[in-house]
Amino acid sequence: MTEETQEENTSPQPLSQGEGQEPTKTPVSELGEFGLIDRLTASVKLNHSSTIKGIGDDAAVMDFDGMKTVISTDMYVEGIHFDPVYTPLQHLGYKAVVGSISDIYAMNATPQQIFVSLAFSSKYTIEAMDAIYAGIQVACDNYKVDLAGGDTTSALHGLVISVTVTGIAKAEDITYRSGAKVHDILVVTGDLGGAYLGLQILEREKRIFLEHPTVRPELEGFDYILKRQLRPEARKDIIEIFADLGIKPSAMIDISDGLSSELMHICKQSGVGCLLHEDKIPYDNQTLEVAHTFKIDPTVCALNGGEDYELLFTLPVAQHDKVMNHPDFTIIGYITEAEEGCRLLTRAGNRHALEAQGWKHF
Amino acid sequence: MTEETQEENTSPQPLSQGEGQEPTKTPVSELGEFGLIDRLTASVKLNHSSTIKGIGDDAAVMDFDGMKTVISTDMYVEGIHFDPVYTPLQHLGYKAVVGSISDIYAMNATPQQIFVSLAFSSKYTIEAMDAIYAGIQVACDNYKVDLAGGDTTSALHGLVISVTVTGIAKAEDITYRSGAKVHDILVVTGDLGGAYLGLQILEREKRIFLEHPTVRPELEGFDYILKRQLRPEARKDIIEIFADLGIKPSAMIDISDGLSSELMHICKQSGVGCLLHEDKIPYDNQTLEVAHTFKIDPTVCALNGGEDYELLFTLPVAQHDKVMNHPDFTIIGYITEAEEGCRLLTRAGNRHALEAQGWKHF
Repeated sequence: MTEETQEENTSPQPLSQGEGQEPTKTPVSELGEFGLIDRLTASVKLNHSSTIKGIGDDAAVMDFDGMKTVISTDMYVEGIHFDPVYTPLQHLGYKAVVGSISDIYAMNATPQQIFVSLAFSSKYTIEAMDAIYAGIQVACDNYKVDLAGGDTTSALHGLVISVTVTGIAKAEDITYRSGAKVHDILVVTGDLGGAYLGLQILEREKRIFLEHPTVRPELEGFDYILKRQLRPEARKDIIEIFADLGIKPSAMIDISDGLSSELMHICKQSGVGCLLHEDKIPYDNQTLEVAHTFKIDPTVCALNGGEDYELLFTLPVAQHDKVMNHPDFTIIGYITEAEEGCRLLTRAGNRHALEAQGWKHF
Repeated sequence: MTEETQEENTSPQPLSQGEGQEPTKTPVSELGEFGLIDRLTASVKLNHSSTIKGIGDDAAVMDFDGMKTVISTDMYVEGIHFDPVYTPLQHLGYKAVVGSISDIYAMNATPQQIFVSLAFSSKYTIEAMDAIYAGIQVACDNYKVDLAGGDTTSALHGLVISVTVTGIAKAEDITYRSGAKVHDILVVTGDLGGAYLGLQILEREKRIFLEHPTVRPELEGFDYILKRQLRPEARKDIIEIFADLGIKPSAMIDISDGLSSELMHICKQSGVGCLLHEDKIPYDNQTLEVAHTFKIDPTVCALNGGEDYELLFTLPVAQHDKVMNHPDFTIIGYITEAEEGCRLLTRAGNRHALEAQGWKHF
């Protein structure tokens, strides 16, 4: 994604908490519930004419003025979706918004409002909440969404962030997972596997950090994949490109769980199969280098890694020329009859059934 | 609230888990993420024409057809909002929906869709998830809302439920917290303090249960206040009564944190003060009896207890006759100039400033 963002310093700086001067740490109890809400929301600006009333009542009020409304909701849980040891809280707030907004783009819709709820233990200070909200607000600015509500409460353990995001679209533009047809081409935006390898770097440096706290983490040279993991972007630009080029995907999904399970969602809901060409999957050079270092097959990173927040879509073959030589798109396969299943055509020319991963947490 | 609901057995049966035969306990890992979602949502029915697409895509799609949209979101956290020792999970699912829908009624709007996200540790089995979803679905039936989406994920500790609910209203019907005017009357629905005293009963029996596990909990005779705590209802009927009687409140809020802080929200946002008459606060007889047993002032239960899910509203004095002798409404005071502050007129004739409580958790 080449779009300029408004934040000054977007490079991730993980594993550096506690270095240099001690930051201020104020318990949330000093402000109380309503004081904290006032503080966190003081600088919220509303931009959309669809936002009639934002934070501060029992509910927000919207006027979608005859457009269709799309709504999606996601949860981010400490220890499952993020590790506080190497996740800067501002990036966490940013990523929570981006991951949720990505679902709205996956409907070919334009995000409008977000609602952010936080449950957090007493180890999270006012300054920690400020950092999370700072990231949320930068994301709201970059993606032009209004922070219109939420809930703020305590928890006995950790931090849970729940984000609900609304979007609008004309009925004829909305793109479901269920519209893929036999012979459609399979297209993906950007490159895959980077977020997963960024996570491997962070996990490696965490292990070193825990064993040798004085050793500085080695994060240089991994900027791209660390950013993919810690401060990803959603493909706002792709929705605009679709409008410019007159592209209407037949089916679309965002890649949050990995290419494999997203492909299987499209095939299951469309009642079709697919053939994915392993040699067409796009990677950044840094992804390939780090995969080599870790001795991980980059295909595994793309298929099962997740969190790339790229868009996967299908297109009638007649529209092939619109995406063929476009730098943001890669054709990675095509849709087949349902009986043929969801398969991977390997570099060696073999065909394997794809498998979905979903959670690995239980 | 007298409205009939569709559930067969609505009486709370807390502190009884583990009695009798051992229930089936299946780890969620046996189904995996997508299997669990399929199971929990298999019986979801969509009723509203506004729900174009519910569960199963990146986002739900709604058509609000020119009506204004209201959205509210709430979180329910284990150990903060509920104690699994005495909270039946079906009631928990029901209460999470009701508490969120109550915010939509507080806007004088009609609920349409809900989105339920769950983060839960491995101590929660498939059967536990089934129970929570059973309660959610009964609430959806009773309040005529469509379960249209959500997220399901694991957590290292406990259970967090996040509920987002949408509603629709004509622009001219929406009631904000900010519309109260000097001389308006203050009206509350139903009775107050019951949910708080229900909680005191449950906490007492939990202490006894933990010390003497063989002693049967004494819950008989407390049906009303236990139901207020464990399986409350939202005031759907009041919105219908408003429409029937041609009542448009000047300001409204639901009572989730206690009468005191809700009054202060209305006064702060409307730029007014109020005088609350202590002797007018409505109670159920069981509430008064149990308050007496526990030696707690019922006024404290009403002011700071919360979770009553009644509606508090203000009304121009010209509409006084519409509510005066109505069994669902009690006039408890009136709006004053801002300089006079938010005050309680005690039974003894003294005036005290009200204080908001908000959380007590940190």
